[in-house]
Amino acid sequence: MIYFNNDYAEGCHPKVLEALVKTNLEQTPGYGEDEFCRSAAEKIKKLCGRENLSVHFLVGGTQTNMTVIDAALRPHQGALCAVTGHINTHETGAVEATGHKVLTVPSDDGKITADQVRSYVTAHWADGAHEHLAQPKLVYISNPTELGTLYTCSELEKLSNTCRELGLYLFLDGARLGYGLMAKDNDVSMEDLSAFCDVFYIGGTKVGALFGEAVVFSNLKLAEDFRYLIKQHGAMLAKGRLLGVQFDALMTDNLYFEISAHADRLADRLRETFKKCGVPFLVENNTNQLFPILPDDVLDALSKTYVFCEQERVDESHRAVRFCTSWATKEENVTSLEKSLEELLKRK
Amino acid sequence: MIYFNNDYAEGCHPKVLEALVKTNLEQTPGYGEDEFCRSAAEKIKKLCGRENLSVHFLVGGTQTNMTVIDAALRPHQGALCAVTGHINTHETGAVEATGHKVLTVPSDDGKITADQVRSYVTAHWADGAHEHLAQPKLVYISNPTELGTLYTCSELEKLSNTCRELGLYLFLDGARLGYGLMAKDNDVSMEDLSAFCDVFYIGGTKVGALFGEAVVFSNLKLAEDFRYLIKQHGAMLAKGRLLGVQFDALMTDNLYFEISAHADRLADRLRETFKKCGVPFLVENNTNQLFPILPDDVLDALSKTYVFCEQERVDESHRAVRFCTSWATKEENVTSLEKSLEELLKRK
Amino acid sequence: MIYFNNDYAEGCHPKVLEALVKTNLEQTPGYGEDEFCRSAAEKIKKLCGRENLSVHFLVGGTQTNMTVIDAALRPHQGALCAVTGHINTHETGAVEATGHKVLTVPSDDGKITADQVRSYVTAHWADGAHEHLAQPKLVYISNPTELGTLYTCSELEKLSNTCRELGLYLFLDGARLGYGLMAKDNDVSMEDLSAFCDVFYIGGTKVGALFGEAVVFSNLKLAEDFRYLIKQHGAMLAKGRLLGVQFDALMTDNLYFEISAHADRLADRLRETFKKCGVPFLVENNTNQLFPILPDDVLDALSKTYVFCEQERVDESHRAVRFCTSWATKEENVTSLEKSLEELLKRK
Amino acid sequence: MIYFNNDYAEGCHPKVLEALVKTNLEQTPGYGEDEFCRSAAEKIKKLCGRENLSVHFLVGGTQTNMTVIDAALRPHQGALCAVTGHINTHETGAVEATGHKVLTVPSDDGKITADQVRSYVTAHWADGAHEHLAQPKLVYISNPTELGTLYTCSELEKLSNTCRELGLYLFLDGARLGYGLMAKDNDVSMEDLSAFCDVFYIGGTKVGALFGEAVVFSNLKLAEDFRYLIKQHGAMLAKGRLLGVQFDALMTDNLYFEISAHADRLADRLRETFKKCGVPFLVENNTNQLFPILPDDVLDALSKTYVFCEQERVDESHRAVRFCTSWATKEENVTSLEKSLEELLKRK
Repeated sequence: MIYFNNDYAEGCHPKVLEALVKTNLEQTPGYGEDEFCRSAAEKIKKLCGRENLSVHFLVGGTQTNMTVIDAALRPHQGALCAVTGHINTHETGAVEATGHKVLTVPSDDGKITADQVRSYVTAHWADGAHEHLAQPKLVYISNPTELGTLYTCSELEKLSNTCRELGLYLFLDGARLGYGLMAKDNDVSMEDLSAFCDVFYIGGTKVGALFGEAVVFSNLKLAEDFRYLIKQHGAMLAKGRLLGVQFDALMTDNLYFEISAHADRLADRLRETFKKCGVPFLVENNTNQLFPILPDDVLDALSKTYVFCEQERVDESHRAVRFCTSWATKEENVTSLEKSLEELLKRK
Repeated sequence: MIYFNNDYAEGCHPKVLEALVKTNLEQTPGYGEDEFCRSAAEKIKKLCGRENLSVHFLVGGTQTNMTVIDAALRPHQGALCAVTGHINTHETGAVEATGHKVLTVPSDDGKITADQVRSYVTAHWADGAHEHLAQPKLVYISNPTELGTLYTCSELEKLSNTCRELGLYLFLDGARLGYGLMAKDNDVSMEDLSAFCDVFYIGGTKVGALFGEAVVFSNLKLAEDFRYLIKQHGAMLAKGRLLGVQFDALMTDNLYFEISAHADRLADRLRETFKKCGVPFLVENNTNQLFPILPDDVLDALSKTYVFCEQERVDESHRAVRFCTSWATKEENVTSLEKSLEELLKRK
Repeated sequence: MIYFNNDYAEGCHPKVLEALVKTNLEQTPGYGEDEFCRSAAEKIKKLCGRENLSVHFLVGGTQTNMTVIDAALRPHQGALCAVTGHINTHETGAVEATGHKVLTVPSDDGKITADQVRSYVTAHWADGAHEHLAQPKLVYISNPTELGTLYTCSELEKLSNTCRELGLYLFLDGARLGYGLMAKDNDVSMEDLSAFCDVFYIGGTKVGALFGEAVVFSNLKLAEDFRYLIKQHGAMLAKGRLLGVQFDALMTDNLYFEISAHADRLADRLRETFKKCGVPFLVENNTNQLFPILPDDVLDALSKTYVFCEQERVDESHRAVRFCTSWATKEENVTSLEKSLEELLKRK
Repeated sequence: MIYFNNDYAEGCHPKVLEALVKTNLEQTPGYGEDEFCRSAAEKIKKLCGRENLSVHFLVGGTQTNMTVIDAALRPHQGALCAVTGHINTHETGAVEATGHKVLTVPSDDGKITADQVRSYVTAHWADGAHEHLAQPKLVYISNPTELGTLYTCSELEKLSNTCRELGLYLFLDGARLGYGLMAKDNDVSMEDLSAFCDVFYIGGTKVGALFGEAVVFSNLKLAEDFRYLIKQHGAMLAKGRLLGVQFDALMTDNLYFEISAHADRLADRLRETFKKCGVPFLVENNTNQLFPILPDDVLDALSKTYVFCEQERVDESHRAVRFCTSWATKEENVTSLEKSLEELLKRK
């Protein structure tokens, strides 16, 4: 079977593995207070173009989302996001388990607009009984979103300005950040992210690492005592250096960005093939996730060789599914999938 | 510098690393639903001598403690432990963050006795206003304890019987389990653990893995829906197979036990040296942690070459400190430490 | 000003007050373990036609909702309700603060159907990654709903059967229960409630008491240790007898039902008047809340004499508002409001 | 039976009841936004000698403790108190249920000293791994304490200064505040309380009200958004005016203080009688709780007529028990108890 179902089917990029192997028997202090973490943090700061950042390494995405949000909010405050937001849909209520309501606005493309934020927050404060409602205090976005779409730089800036004006924090989940930054039409940079967000993270788990997410606070007030929160949420790795070693490797010689570009390029190839075959998409995007709408019989045939993800039923005979490429996707597997697609769809 | 301060200063045992390297580019399902996890779970069941167990792999100790305890308890119930228990002292209130009070009894040696449990629980129910008190429902023990001491098989059995009689769960934190099982006078087996405990875990982080704890439920009621709780607590590794691969390697050809025995043997050597030099211990034990009481000037001299842990001040001129050995400790470093000790203490 | 904005603008019914005054200096045990609470519980059991119930008295609605839901659910489980459900909209995330996600389905009339429950729960279990989703385990309904609508006996039965078949609990918030039970077309009885629900409550705060909600468990498993949960959620009144005295008075000589009927009758009068004047409703119902849609200028004029609640803007010149009657509403105030309405609307 | 077991066996003081009766049918806004609450708050500010306070009314003590502490702390922070503190012993883990660890220091008399606070906090920050420990951020004291003892003004001042110097909040639980303020040797005033504490409360439940605690913040930062927290913790009474009416009555014409003095005077009488009879106390104090140590047979005899509270067994034939007086205690009942005591103890 060939896996296109997600971007975490393999281990890590060979260069990351090499770094782990090379440092394996070195002795270091625990809990992220080692030289590798320091070095990785420095490289990230450099990429963001500013020194005044607080960088922390956690193990996974759900863990990072709940720890950051719990660190930022008081008990009565909630996180506002698109109804499709990962924290709202696929984290078993992890944010609620820390006591905070996830507040949602409708979204077709996985994004939330500055106007939606403004009107939600304005309505909250206009309500005479606003203390009966969870208070919106943080905007959670993903970039790329759960649907593979991207915020433009100007959208991000507007969101950021709106949040600051209204006293909300902006938190960007970058579980697939690399695939966003290297996408064809992307105009957002690392500098932009650290300028526009109070806090964001650079996903490692889905982009070349065994695991790991690098959290970057530019709002240092939110980072206060953050190591306590990491520990309390079970997110402090004893051998924290494993995160440092991996991110240090990823941030060296542009590795993180090159392997992301690889995935995007293969996704673009597949996207073209789908389009050529007349296959519509549930949603258009330029990143490593594709959501084609295909006939059930084609999907049945494909499923004998390829693993992909069910997304949703579209009509009686069609389903939208998800195909992912990643840093590890092999050119030959894409070629094989393209052939299968062309064959199966030509018959129609 | 030579690190004796803890048992997680290095990466992982070479055979574990080899397994990770070998499987790195294989594609597997995520979240622990892969063949490596299944294989590792099977091996653990075999070691426990019973099939009817539910095995899960988590990343770290604090995470495991809070997830298991939160899974087992209703909101008004607390976890009872020795005042020295890790959940009470060194987890930033992680258990309380899930809503549960940690209830404590006094302990000099890190252990809690069946009689202490009985009298605590009896007093609870005898109180006319017991609903004003957190209800003791789970007993948390560590083996080895935080002070390196061990439960005997008969102590464990008595604890277990008392818990069952009183309707409490028995949960054993085995973060350093290997070092306990291979200790000189240990008479507890894996079969005993799964027979006496409702749930226990086999520590990987401190015993040869990069990270990872294997949770073993023999009380299957407690394991119900446990995967939801893993996910909700941010403890579900996307590439769960990393845990499977590591535990599979550790449970193959007795590796886990052999490397534990190595650490215990070196600890025994050191223990003998301390004794020969007339050094008293804060607490006597047979596992990989030593708590000698040494003069301040000797500690100052040692600290130029060796890293160790501060434990507590004993009197004006003496402190108890902690030296750890581990699967990775080198014979030559122990020899070097012994020489330094003999030299420094002879001068006295 | 004349208050029609809610059903808790006054203190309590004179007979309830009389009972409080009469018993004021009696000495009783605290925390609800007194004769008044016992007597009130007995009367409630009699009304429900069954002995095998566990009855508890709490102070307010939000408190009751969060305490009951937290008692019923394990950490990863959520409460399913209409998107308009009080726990979802007007409780400052109190349920989430106990760690549980509120799960919602769309609703125009404030109700949730058995089919909606079935399809939500079926979809949950059909999802290959259901442990990544909060697990639906309890259905929360209000009767009357937040929009004043009522479940029919057959709807309730179907909901109940569906919940039992799927392993979910059914919890009915009866903050305005009296106004529902005495409504013109209601066919649900107290016996039905205790037969169909796992737990429900009889609202006192809005129906004649100073405060207080009587929780009735027919699923005794959910009531296990409930007094601990009451205490832990700050919901155990030291002078618990105040709740017993009030509910005992309300459940004596049909008082609760008579004063509810009074409110419904006055609401019916107002409803007729609105209809006569051609005023449409946001939602049709037969209970003590009315949601007429009125022109802005009429509302402005009314607001000089009457207090009512804003509900939502309907179009550029019309808003839906809420008028409530209650046990305390005076006939003459209804007459006055009717006159004002007829006058203001005739001019149109 | 005559109840001396606690100070909440009756309803409320007749003047409080009169105020409730008189205002019963007035219509007011809900949730504490009425004139009665405003008036009561003004009177409290006047008693404290400062305008710049934020006053809120909640229903009960456990509720108030958990709501205030949850409002003040970030997730990783704990509340430090004497091991006998009410939040540590008799609230079913309510503070932990909001996620915060209760941290304790030993205490024989129910008090915690400035030196204990300083050494606890200093040790925390001196620990190299302090992020592995819950961070002490708030000191919780009761005055009178759970053992009826009182802080002197100078002790309070020292505690306050120490807290401010170390960046901790000082929170005083005044569930029995009146009985403390009117005690023979008390030298603490309402002005002192608002000067020394960040937040404290004036207990109504045990001092003349049906229920209710008036929370007074002098640290306005802690009061930010407090109404949200009240609502979220189920502590916002729909008919909030009931709290306003009661505290307004209590704060009028010195009522709160006069009825407290009554209880203290009767406690003093009893105390003298015990002393005359040679009865020792578990702890000495001057407030409305007495903890005499009496022979088992005397207690058995007394228990036929009087209700009192078990405190602890002292030796094989003696127990310490608690007798309480209150605003409602009748002179004649004290006389009767004195006679019984003298008779029973003379025989010895």
